[in-house]
Amino acid sequence: MSNSIGRIFRLTSFGESHGKAVGGIIDGCPAGFALDEVGIQAALDRRRPGQSKITTSRNEGDKVEFLSGIFEGKTTGAPIAFSITNTNARSKDYSHMKDLYRPSHADYTYAEKYGNRDYRGGGRTSARETIARVVAGALAQQYLVSKGMKIEAGVYSVGNLSLSTEIDSLDFSGVEENIVRCPDQSMAKDMEALILKTKKAGDTIGGTVACRISNVPVGLGEPVFDKLHARLAYAMMGINAVKGFEYGSGFHGSTMKGSEHNDVFTHENGEIQTKSNYSGGIQGGVSNGADIYCKVAFKPVATLMVDQETVDAEGNKIIFKGKGRHDPCVVSRAVPIVEAMAAITLLDFYLISKSINS
Amino acid sequence: MSNSIGRIFRLTSFGESHGKAVGGIIDGCPAGFALDEVGIQAALDRRRPGQSKITTSRNEGDKVEFLSGIFEGKTTGAPIAFSITNTNARSKDYSHMKDLYRPSHADYTYAEKYGNRDYRGGGRTSARETIARVVAGALAQQYLVSKGMKIEAGVYSVGNLSLSTEIDSLDFSGVEENIVRCPDQSMAKDMEALILKTKKAGDTIGGTVACRISNVPVGLGEPVFDKLHARLAYAMMGINAVKGFEYGSGFHGSTMKGSEHNDVFTHENGEIQTKSNYSGGIQGGVSNGADIYCKVAFKPVATLMVDQETVDAEGNKIIFKGKGRHDPCVVSRAVPIVEAMAAITLLDFYLISKSINS
Amino acid sequence: MSNSIGRIFRLTSFGESHGKAVGGIIDGCPAGFALDEVGIQAALDRRRPGQSKITTSRNEGDKVEFLSGIFEGKTTGAPIAFSITNTNARSKDYSHMKDLYRPSHADYTYAEKYGNRDYRGGGRTSARETIARVVAGALAQQYLVSKGMKIEAGVYSVGNLSLSTEIDSLDFSGVEENIVRCPDQSMAKDMEALILKTKKAGDTIGGTVACRISNVPVGLGEPVFDKLHARLAYAMMGINAVKGFEYGSGFHGSTMKGSEHNDVFTHENGEIQTKSNYSGGIQGGVSNGADIYCKVAFKPVATLMVDQETVDAEGNKIIFKGKGRHDPCVVSRAVPIVEAMAAITLLDFYLISKSINS
Amino acid sequence: MSNSIGRIFRLTSFGESHGKAVGGIIDGCPAGFALDEVGIQAALDRRRPGQSKITTSRNEGDKVEFLSGIFEGKTTGAPIAFSITNTNARSKDYSHMKDLYRPSHADYTYAEKYGNRDYRGGGRTSARETIARVVAGALAQQYLVSKGMKIEAGVYSVGNLSLSTEIDSLDFSGVEENIVRCPDQSMAKDMEALILKTKKAGDTIGGTVACRISNVPVGLGEPVFDKLHARLAYAMMGINAVKGFEYGSGFHGSTMKGSEHNDVFTHENGEIQTKSNYSGGIQGGVSNGADIYCKVAFKPVATLMVDQETVDAEGNKIIFKGKGRHDPCVVSRAVPIVEAMAAITLLDFYLISKSINS
Repeated sequence: MSNSIGRIFRLTSFGESHGKAVGGIIDGCPAGFALDEVGIQAALDRRRPGQSKITTSRNEGDKVEFLSGIFEGKTTGAPIAFSITNTNARSKDYSHMKDLYRPSHADYTYAEKYGNRDYRGGGRTSARETIARVVAGALAQQYLVSKGMKIEAGVYSVGNLSLSTEIDSLDFSGVEENIVRCPDQSMAKDMEALILKTKKAGDTIGGTVACRISNVPVGLGEPVFDKLHARLAYAMMGINAVKGFEYGSGFHGSTMKGSEHNDVFTHENGEIQTKSNYSGGIQGGVSNGADIYCKVAFKPVATLMVDQETVDAEGNKIIFKGKGRHDPCVVSRAVPIVEAMAAITLLDFYLISKSINS
Repeated sequence: MSNSIGRIFRLTSFGESHGKAVGGIIDGCPAGFALDEVGIQAALDRRRPGQSKITTSRNEGDKVEFLSGIFEGKTTGAPIAFSITNTNARSKDYSHMKDLYRPSHADYTYAEKYGNRDYRGGGRTSARETIARVVAGALAQQYLVSKGMKIEAGVYSVGNLSLSTEIDSLDFSGVEENIVRCPDQSMAKDMEALILKTKKAGDTIGGTVACRISNVPVGLGEPVFDKLHARLAYAMMGINAVKGFEYGSGFHGSTMKGSEHNDVFTHENGEIQTKSNYSGGIQGGVSNGADIYCKVAFKPVATLMVDQETVDAEGNKIIFKGKGRHDPCVVSRAVPIVEAMAAITLLDFYLISKSINS
Repeated sequence: MSNSIGRIFRLTSFGESHGKAVGGIIDGCPAGFALDEVGIQAALDRRRPGQSKITTSRNEGDKVEFLSGIFEGKTTGAPIAFSITNTNARSKDYSHMKDLYRPSHADYTYAEKYGNRDYRGGGRTSARETIARVVAGALAQQYLVSKGMKIEAGVYSVGNLSLSTEIDSLDFSGVEENIVRCPDQSMAKDMEALILKTKKAGDTIGGTVACRISNVPVGLGEPVFDKLHARLAYAMMGINAVKGFEYGSGFHGSTMKGSEHNDVFTHENGEIQTKSNYSGGIQGGVSNGADIYCKVAFKPVATLMVDQETVDAEGNKIIFKGKGRHDPCVVSRAVPIVEAMAAITLLDFYLISKSINS
Repeated sequence: MSNSIGRIFRLTSFGESHGKAVGGIIDGCPAGFALDEVGIQAALDRRRPGQSKITTSRNEGDKVEFLSGIFEGKTTGAPIAFSITNTNARSKDYSHMKDLYRPSHADYTYAEKYGNRDYRGGGRTSARETIARVVAGALAQQYLVSKGMKIEAGVYSVGNLSLSTEIDSLDFSGVEENIVRCPDQSMAKDMEALILKTKKAGDTIGGTVACRISNVPVGLGEPVFDKLHARLAYAMMGINAVKGFEYGSGFHGSTMKGSEHNDVFTHENGEIQTKSNYSGGIQGGVSNGADIYCKVAFKPVATLMVDQETVDAEGNKIIFKGKGRHDPCVVSRAVPIVEAMAAITLLDFYLISKSINS
């Protein structure tokens, strides 16, 4: 179950960073949808390493090939398999760390869990796995757009540099105009400078990504365990390096009074709406038609270009310094991944609602 | 699927606040476990309304009755059904709100989703549903304890009153010594005063609950989508009124540098350990043996004892004031629920690891 | 997972033959359905022991009580929990077999699997568990009927006494007019005589049940693993004592030539139909609009009123003779169970098709 | 869900007969297993078209390529993706049937369900999909063998030519010595003659496949819905062209008396065993250590090399005659598929039993 997500619209992913390929199978995509393969590749290009000076210089083309489920440009209802060949995997970069446990990586836990070690760049724990998510997510996003919905995301903070505008009120239209993918062009410059400075020091830095989903029909999400935001949290927390998730008023909401926090209902333009949106578009686990918005926290990348202490499998002390090509900060490349996880989650609820709500 | 949680150890819950009973079925509990029914009732008593002056005065006995799956004091491997009769449900308290949508409640979204309205205290959206979680969670917790694990939780903040000690270093032993369930007795007094003051004003207030899980074996959790913290987030975000979740360094970790954040491995007392624990006991989605700790944010309760504006189903403006018996702050009663969700999640991973790790 | 069936419309069952109650939780039933509780009880009465001279004389009222999910006579979309109290469980009847393994019962396998033994009438392996199926199935059947579908079942054979008419062409309307529940009144008399003769000898006998589902919309069922008949087989084979399942031409079809077996398409009354129906209403796992029909084989009941050899847990040879109250032949009481499993399976596919087909 | 099978050991399959490739992802395979890739290819060769004069002359190499989850010859615990390129797909063979519904094929139901038509050889409904099952099944079988279990299968009947020996007592060792894959060499000759005669007439014929699983540990299978034989039935009924399933005494058991059918327990060589095995190695849904055996019925292939009547999408009458390369009888090639489904089902229960039984 660990490598599948979704109940009706379901992605099963495969692949290690230094194996032959990464990819996945998308099951449950509605038939007859005229997908845009070029658009899916474009989403993948946004995730791609080597795209700018603030990302890893590892440069993989990451071209997606669809193997099934599409006929004459439309989905057929059959599972959509896809594969992306690993072309630029320098396993040599990793041979120096075959026997040691990199700090704050998954080397130790995986070796203990599975009794083996794929030391080539993290194997299955590599963020290359997120390629499969972006492909499935881009397809889901296209479908949701065809139903009028919209998913936007951008970098909200890098280290202590943070936007202050509520996600609800952000203008995401300029996100692709800067390499950081921050909605605010001025802040983007500062963030870029901070990332480059951090990179120069051989260090890394964390950050947050904000996401907003608009025009969601009322009624998506299930009571109790499968609340819309619970599945959204699950999807986001499953992205590599994520440490926290909040939606609507989030952690700040926990400091507020009910009289400040309640979203008062009004009736405007023939529709029932709320005056404020601390609820983040979800009440009782079910979408209420207002914008759904959330924030996702990413820790700093664990691979540093400076000496660090660690141990090998026998417990011997070792000094380790990263060699390969790594990101000083993941949030810019994480933006399309956050969008993807939002899209996968939303489409799944959308399809389920057709069964249950009727 | 919406009313079940867990893959091997699975709870399916049922019941509305004003129906005959709430309860559930626990499937997948290992056979031959000598459970402590008194201990389960004790956990329920910690969740119970009317337990102190800072909780709702609604006073239900909430006695759990087991209907199956237990024979001669031990689990049999068969599903464990249980039921708690609703004894103190005053439906009259709710008749005044039959036709209106309470602000920041689920009245509107449920009515839209299901095309009907159970106006008696929120029906399925009522937090009475969490009774089922506490029963299943208490059983899971007993099982985990029998395997050496330990789950602790307590109130970390109420409004702007917050502890500053890292959850990792908290002493939870005094949590039950104050009605707030704060690990710090002095802070507990301040929190109690704040809650009472808020209650007096007819208002409510939010807060956070911290949770720590100790002595977890290395190797629980799955890569990719079913990371241990992703399932933990899912479980916690499914609790009523929760707006955010973080584990380990959490949102604060997103402001840090890698050189500060990395947990350096050492070899001490014959075991591989980490010097710090920003990872929160989980690396690559898999437990590393260190303490797992997390924080859960609760919004202020939506029912206020003051006038609020809202609309009815036809969109007519209405002034609404809460009448029933409600909590001014949920975090104290949420402590056993947070423990329960942690226990359900951990036991599920524990049982799955037996299949997969071997 | 073992105690749940269904993906969207899902039943989770609980209860042992000699515990407090049996029952279940139905999740995923569409909201707003005006169910007929009297009709559900009537279905239960058809399954009930003690209903005639050819069934066990154990006489339990088996009154269903609904605990949740229904408000003002309609389903609300919340889980529907129900419970049936065990009123007539004479545990004493079983004390003589506490330490032995009854031949062709599950005593041995359960004791080995779970390391414990609930010797009171089979515990969880008792056919009393099927009560939960009949309740959920009757509800599902009512829903399907409201959509124009029809599920019928009846006894096709007892021992070597078998109908020869194709199930496709049977008239099930008289099934309830005889205690055997055979669609043919004359054959029913012979079957009744055979069962009584067998009972008198302290012996038991097997039989088959036929089931037909009419007016099924085209398009239910999924390709590959979740073919409609694969899920139907799974549901039927999970009934106690079932040894075989076939649909359409079944085993006989394996002796035929393609030129005899193919169902030729025609166009009549504006609809595409097939001239014959060896396919049993399903092609490629998907319903084609023709009648779905199947046959289910039940072994003879294992409890005999004559001496049998067996062993106890230590391997000591023991002579064992049934004492309690048991059926000489289960097929008559199995008819409503077969209908129930058909209904649960069909409704699940019906709801899923709304998500996937669109 | 439709394209996945298994709960812990899970196969998700993809691919159409005339697309780029067929294949799948195997999730949940235990780590550290030294699989035999040559052996997996050998299983695939047994399923391969063009292998003998009684199978289709369509001749595809069907070479499996593994894309992930294997490192240095062992499984890593990561998902195992594999792909088989479609090399010999003559789409032209199918252009003549673009607009018609082939009798007893899935053309009509799929077109109605999905609103589109992949007319190239049946698309997803093609038996080429079973390639993925054979790969996953061969891997599962190797794992089970490493645990001491054994899975055997062979052709039991073709048309009216049937073995009479109980499956329980069959010697499967010579199955690969004849092209029919019948355990009896003399009967194999007769079957071969019958198939060739049928082929010559442009006709096809049905048959049955028997399967036996030996040395199964006591305790696999779950009560109630997930009985071992219920999951086995589900797996087998999901194979293309299957119309019936029985295990142990099967349909014949429904004609027997309890006094004949009961399997008496004895204690021999320090083990509790049964004298007979009408139970088919499963009691109450759980394996009892005796051989598990079952029979699977296949209908005659629907594509005939003679004229047949049918209609097109508009309902116009059309005469249709098969052109491509098709099997006159599928049972010989179905033998490895039946083994595969048995292995996938058994391994899944084996892994689950580690979680639940302890």
